[in-house]
Amino acid sequence: MLFRMHPVDFIREKRDGRAHTEAELRAWVAGLTQGEIPDYQIAAWLMAVYFQGLSEQETFVLTDAMARSGEMLDLSGLGPTVDKHSSGGVGDKTSLVVGPILAASGAVVAKMSGRGLAHTGGTIDKLESIPGFRATLSKEEFLAIARRVGLVIAAQSVDLAPADGKLYALRDVTATVESIPLIASSIMSKKLAAGARAIALDVKVGKGAFMKQAADARRLAELMIAIGTRAGRRVGAVLSQMDEPLGRAVGNAIEVQEAIRTLRGEGPEDLTELALALAEHGLKLAGLDPARARPALESGAALEKFRAFVAAQGGDPRVADDPERLALAPGVVELRAEKDGVVAGLDALKVGLAVLRLGGGREKKGAPIEHGVGVYLEKKIGDRVRSGEVLARVYHREKGLKEALELLGGAYALADAARRPPLILDVLDPV
Amino acid sequence: MLFRMHPVDFIREKRDGRAHTEAELRAWVAGLTQGEIPDYQIAAWLMAVYFQGLSEQETFVLTDAMARSGEMLDLSGLGPTVDKHSSGGVGDKTSLVVGPILAASGAVVAKMSGRGLAHTGGTIDKLESIPGFRATLSKEEFLAIARRVGLVIAAQSVDLAPADGKLYALRDVTATVESIPLIASSIMSKKLAAGARAIALDVKVGKGAFMKQAADARRLAELMIAIGTRAGRRVGAVLSQMDEPLGRAVGNAIEVQEAIRTLRGEGPEDLTELALALAEHGLKLAGLDPARARPALESGAALEKFRAFVAAQGGDPRVADDPERLALAPGVVELRAEKDGVVAGLDALKVGLAVLRLGGGREKKGAPIEHGVGVYLEKKIGDRVRSGEVLARVYHREKGLKEALELLGGAYALADAARRPPLILDVLDPV
Repeated sequence: MLFRMHPVDFIREKRDGRAHTEAELRAWVAGLTQGEIPDYQIAAWLMAVYFQGLSEQETFVLTDAMARSGEMLDLSGLGPTVDKHSSGGVGDKTSLVVGPILAASGAVVAKMSGRGLAHTGGTIDKLESIPGFRATLSKEEFLAIARRVGLVIAAQSVDLAPADGKLYALRDVTATVESIPLIASSIMSKKLAAGARAIALDVKVGKGAFMKQAADARRLAELMIAIGTRAGRRVGAVLSQMDEPLGRAVGNAIEVQEAIRTLRGEGPEDLTELALALAEHGLKLAGLDPARARPALESGAALEKFRAFVAAQGGDPRVADDPERLALAPGVVELRAEKDGVVAGLDALKVGLAVLRLGGGREKKGAPIEHGVGVYLEKKIGDRVRSGEVLARVYHREKGLKEALELLGGAYALADAARRPPLILDVLDPV
Repeated sequence: MLFRMHPVDFIREKRDGRAHTEAELRAWVAGLTQGEIPDYQIAAWLMAVYFQGLSEQETFVLTDAMARSGEMLDLSGLGPTVDKHSSGGVGDKTSLVVGPILAASGAVVAKMSGRGLAHTGGTIDKLESIPGFRATLSKEEFLAIARRVGLVIAAQSVDLAPADGKLYALRDVTATVESIPLIASSIMSKKLAAGARAIALDVKVGKGAFMKQAADARRLAELMIAIGTRAGRRVGAVLSQMDEPLGRAVGNAIEVQEAIRTLRGEGPEDLTELALALAEHGLKLAGLDPARARPALESGAALEKFRAFVAAQGGDPRVADDPERLALAPGVVELRAEKDGVVAGLDALKVGLAVLRLGGGREKKGAPIEHGVGVYLEKKIGDRVRSGEVLARVYHREKGLKEALELLGGAYALADAARRPPLILDVLDPV
């Protein structure tokens, strides 16, 4: 028995708002990783944490214990490693742009990424729409590509933070996802186990994000920075707006197309701005010169890194020259404006759900997805439209089309006037 | 599927402080009774209820749905049925005195009772220390004895409120026992299923009770009365003090001895007073004359009922004449005062735990118990003692003696002066 305290006493301690000791909390994580603690006791504890919170000290210990519950990747010797994490958003293909910029600026990006769930797509799902791309690599292949190319993005193959896997699965079915200390420890446990020395966090705020309020997003970011700093990493965060989707493309293949266009200097302004901000912050955290980021993008060096990275993982590198090689679904339907006006709202959550209904995301873990379906947003917040003009194009395979169009129609709100809100709300440095 | 809502949405509704609709709550109880809802989701919901509470309407619906989750005993045709319930206390043998008084006063007591757990003994365990006594009866035997004798007390043989059984087992291991709406619904669901028209509740307050504060005990009592009244029963409550144990005997056989002495007019004052108050209240609730209670006790009619009831359930009726026939454990140790003073405190919880350690109670469901072990309290709060005088006698079989003596020594607090607190704090009528 790793956990020697009576689980009921441990639950009661948190229920009554008392703090767990470091030894208790570590034993609890060890016990639940080994399957010693029944799910119903973990569930009751999670709900008690939802109400009573965890102190910064408790959150750090929980995170560290979860990070150590499985393998800790050793990236030392690769050079100045940088990881980037987004708290999840709609149309968020930023990693596909930031990774190549960082690698072209002298950093090493060796990133293990999850698959998407619910209304936000996963980076791995997006990459798998590139013909031939292999996301599943052995640890040796993963490290070799990181060393040779400076950029590798693979599906999680080693057992990183299995305690978090267990807790996350339970949180998902017990309405205990929305807890800032639990979100922070879940994200950071995987980042600590994944080995990078510098970590640039993209914390999203708004309708399409977990954090609906800027104050909550700031608390989450500050907590993650504090945890990472205590663990000896250089961690910073960008707070960015996620009321409307990022960029214009939402889906899998269609987002990779947009990422490539952005690397070619032809991408949407918001995606370019956020990718550069995150790359600059990541370079600074890694002790490199942030001024390298923009030239790496504008010179085409980042595009070359992308090409080499795709080729190294078995993908067709010609997509870098011709993003149209990424096949979209054959059916196309246009959503048109029913009146004149200015787009005042474009609900990211509804757009994400529309793509989910089309088959572009997963409602259940392990379900297959349609890489070619998606949405292209011709109009975004602040854009003027005339009645009959195209708001968005939907790429579909019939499945879920009616529901998707309804969601998308409901996502747009027109008004007499509106201004695009600022994209980047703040940049937070390590404490 | 009985429960059609997504369990996560149901949990989130309570987590966020919203009320469940009647239909949702009934479907939830039906679903969990049928095993449709996993324990981890029930556990998370219980903790959310712990923090957010349930409205009186929700508590009634939960109680009614749990009561109807199994068999509803039909006691109609037996006459004016009265049930009595205690919220649990140390040395609480009141049912063994109240039942005979009620039956001797024209009421019918057909009571299904649980076995004891933790530091409070169960009525069934106590009765089983009578040689030959059978607590397990068929439903037909149970009803026949009720009809013939007017008093029957049996272990729960039919499936009364199985939903409560499921919830109670989970509450016990998830630190969600101490919730007033959950306690009220648990008690009242079993009482409603058990069929009596009138229910006299004995709600204990103090160190040895679930409710440590009088205000909480009153809230619990008022809630149970409201639930019972809405369900068409006549329910009232007595709030009684449980800082020190009730009477002087704590154990199984030793408590039956004390109950019999009380029925013979030779019992301790506090037990006699509480038993009469509960009997009077029960008679009033049943529409009978409360003035019948005292003569029934003083005339020996209640003792005769006790004798008939014991005989009807196969027990040796001679215990009614000679309580010494109930065998106590052979080992006797006296606890003596180390200084002069007045007993200012006698911690009921510690006394209960001492008897538990001696083997007189269960630490686990289904464990066997020692009927003969126990404690006799020579001194109670307000009693003057001289150094070297006997405070209490411990009847033991060696097991746990050292620990029990330590607990008992720690239970007594001596001071220069102290007064016995009032036993009955209030009597609450139906609303």
